Amino acid sequence: MKEIMAVIRMNKINKTKLALIDAGISSMTAMDALGRGKGLVDMTLLKGAEQGYEEAIAQLGESGRLIPKRAISIVVPNKLVSKTVKTIIGVNQTGKSGDGVVWVMPVLESLSVRTGESGDKVLDEI
Amino acid sequence: MKEIMAVIRMNKINKTKLALIDAGISSMTAMDALGRGKGLVDMTLLKGAEQGYEEAIAQLGESGRLIPKRAISIVVPNKLVSKTVKTIIGVNQTGKSGDGVVWVMPVLESLSVRTGESGDKVLDEI
Amino acid sequence: MKEIMAVIRMNKINKTKLALIDAGISSMTAMDALGRGKGLVDMTLLKGAEQGYEEAIAQLGESGRLIPKRAISIVVPNKLVSKTVKTIIGVNQTGKSGDGVVWVMPVLESLSVRTGESGDKVLDEI
Repeated sequence: MKEIMAVIRMNKINKTKLALIDAGISSMTAMDALGRGKGLVDMTLLKGAEQGYEEAIAQLGESGRLIPKRAISIVVPNKLVSKTVKTIIGVNQTGKSGDGVVWVMPVLESLSVRTGESGDKVLDEI
Repeated sequence: MKEIMAVIRMNKINKTKLALIDAGISSMTAMDALGRGKGLVDMTLLKGAEQGYEEAIAQLGESGRLIPKRAISIVVPNKLVSKTVKTIIGVNQTGKSGDGVVWVMPVLESLSVRTGESGDKVLDEI
Repeated sequence: MKEIMAVIRMNKINKTKLALIDAGISSMTAMDALGRGKGLVDMTLLKGAEQGYEEAIAQLGESGRLIPKRAISIVVPNKLVSKTVKTIIGVNQTGKSGDGVVWVMPVLESLSVRTGESGDKVLDEI
């Protein structure tokens, strides 16, 4: 059992949710967050700013600005880790700075509050 | 040392906090979140909707809707993991879809910002 | 690779961000949170309240009150864990109750959404 954490663009949350449902991954938690990365200082930056990408614009101005993001957390059985990661990347990849990061963390146990049961079968209970 | 994460109903946060204090678990962090699970398609669903449970109502309408929830995080010594999980389940269990999930995650180290010390003794320092 | 989680005072987020940038740690995620700890019942409490520390004031009144905090999450390569923890503690330590806690958690894998690549090199991609 693993937790898939990701920080993605605010405007991608709905598409991400629907892609996960389509992939048969039926629970997720989302939170508002502020994020910053290193930023990419290359030719894609100016182009990104021209196209209205907020990360590119921010990097041309104030350094290290925190950008509004969505953090999502999905706990899945081991066999669904790869599918979940690919689904998130697939729907969120624009190729521009600020696309986000996905992390995989260990989870020792999951329990359903409704039934008190534990194990993979409770992961849909949010 | 473990992190106990839980996603619970918004209106249960205060009772959960008080139950944890009563159980001697003296620190917690809470965050607003949006969550969705698989939903239960059975006879309890319609009954739940009649009783005003928002998860039941949502499942009768739009599929996969994200419901406002509270995410809580509590880091405890290993010996308090079971008590913490039982306390959270005890106060949040209604038996209806949407009661939430509890996850147990490994924590390698905890440090107090106030003193710089590490170990179980700093877990009350939030 | 490790996740450094910390719950700090609301008014310390900007200084913390700048200190991390100065230390060469170039990505972070921040979230609003509510937190409570045990509280310190000693002579520093009254003094803290006099100086306007909200935790001290809260402890003189209602017990167990949840205080607005900032939760931050930073994923770094193993070699930067100590530097990250010291930077957070250095900028957030006032010596008063409510300075917060830092936790170190294991991370199994990180992937860049922009490139699909994994490994330490993607940790700046938020």
